[in-house]
Amino acid sequence: MTGVEERRQKLRKALIAAAERAISRRGLTHLRARDLAKEAKCAVGAIYNVFPDLDALIFEVNGRTLARFEQFLEKAKDPIPRGRRAGNPAVEQLIHLAVTYVDFAVKNHMRWRALFDHRVEDEGAEAIPDWYVAEQARMFDLVEKPLRDLRPDMKDEALNRFAKTMFSAVHGVVSLGLDTKLMALPANVLRDQVMMLVGALADGLLAGRPAPRPR
Amino acid sequence: MTGVEERRQKLRKALIAAAERAISRRGLTHLRARDLAKEAKCAVGAIYNVFPDLDALIFEVNGRTLARFEQFLEKAKDPIPRGRRAGNPAVEQLIHLAVTYVDFAVKNHMRWRALFDHRVEDEGAEAIPDWYVAEQARMFDLVEKPLRDLRPDMKDEALNRFAKTMFSAVHGVVSLGLDTKLMALPANVLRDQVMMLVGALADGLLAGRPAPRPR
Repeated sequence: MTGVEERRQKLRKALIAAAERAISRRGLTHLRARDLAKEAKCAVGAIYNVFPDLDALIFEVNGRTLARFEQFLEKAKDPIPRGRRAGNPAVEQLIHLAVTYVDFAVKNHMRWRALFDHRVEDEGAEAIPDWYVAEQARMFDLVEKPLRDLRPDMKDEALNRFAKTMFSAVHGVVSLGLDTKLMALPANVLRDQVMMLVGALADGLLAGRPAPRPR
Repeated sequence: MTGVEERRQKLRKALIAAAERAISRRGLTHLRARDLAKEAKCAVGAIYNVFPDLDALIFEVNGRTLARFEQFLEKAKDPIPRGRRAGNPAVEQLIHLAVTYVDFAVKNHMRWRALFDHRVEDEGAEAIPDWYVAEQARMFDLVEKPLRDLRPDMKDEALNRFAKTMFSAVHGVVSLGLDTKLMALPANVLRDQVMMLVGALADGLLAGRPAPRPR
């Protein structure tokens, strides 16, 4: 690596770290190039030597948040109280995912909001980095896998659509539930809500299962 | 009304109209006091003679969007295709509400997003005008009423919580479904998704009904 390239990489890292801290503390709305430059000890213009725009920098932070969620998920203990056991490992896995999502959002509120509040100026698909699209797809895969165990007869497209619906529904409950302007619900209420929601959706999916063939 | 008060009211209206147009066209993210002042033909400082801050102006616009949704709902034709009839008027009413919500969000994308993207600086409950809280509560009442018809045995608090869950779940599907960064689903897919979701939740609610008493 040349000295110039080394300095570029160093600045990139410093700016991502500064943006990560700013978003975690005060949220995406208050992210300002000026503040980032100050914290990374560079001129405002230097930001645009290492990132095409602030959106690219935000994608880096959001990509880290997605990776952080995956780590969080791996470490998460099974949160399903004994009385709530669904008796079906795939349904239990879906409930586990949903409850862990609640806990992650509660503990990383601002970072997590930034994932969804980030609107890119040019809203076409080409404005989103491929690696970020792939990272997002991994989230849906996490939901799709247990759904496939529940309904191995369903086609990929239908399962994928169902996974998106379930993810979005859980996300909606967490997103509006944590909105201080709207509800400001405590974490245990949110956990109950998403368990109920995922349970109802899984029941609906299982009810649509084709009848076993007569032997 | 004195001449001064009359001018104040006129400026207030002009600013609300300008903010409404700006939000409808370019979304909340790009709302700038300077642009609003230019359009309402006043000095930037004059805005703060009639509104304590931009948040208060945004609440006015969002209050209008909520009122607009209620009008939209009254005019909406019954959207449930014949094959989808649930055979239960309360479930049909819930599906009607959810599908109308999809259609409103699709037709008023930016205005509708602004309802949820608006974060007040001081996030305490006291920062939200009482009239706005009341307007929001009317939205949940719309969902709660048919739920009460489905489960007249349930307590108000439980029904209210269920209404919030159902609203939030539907909102999540519409919000992420219309997000170009994430899914960008067409309106007919969204309609199918929310119908399925509301149907599953209603089934779950009905399944929990107490058994009829032996006579």
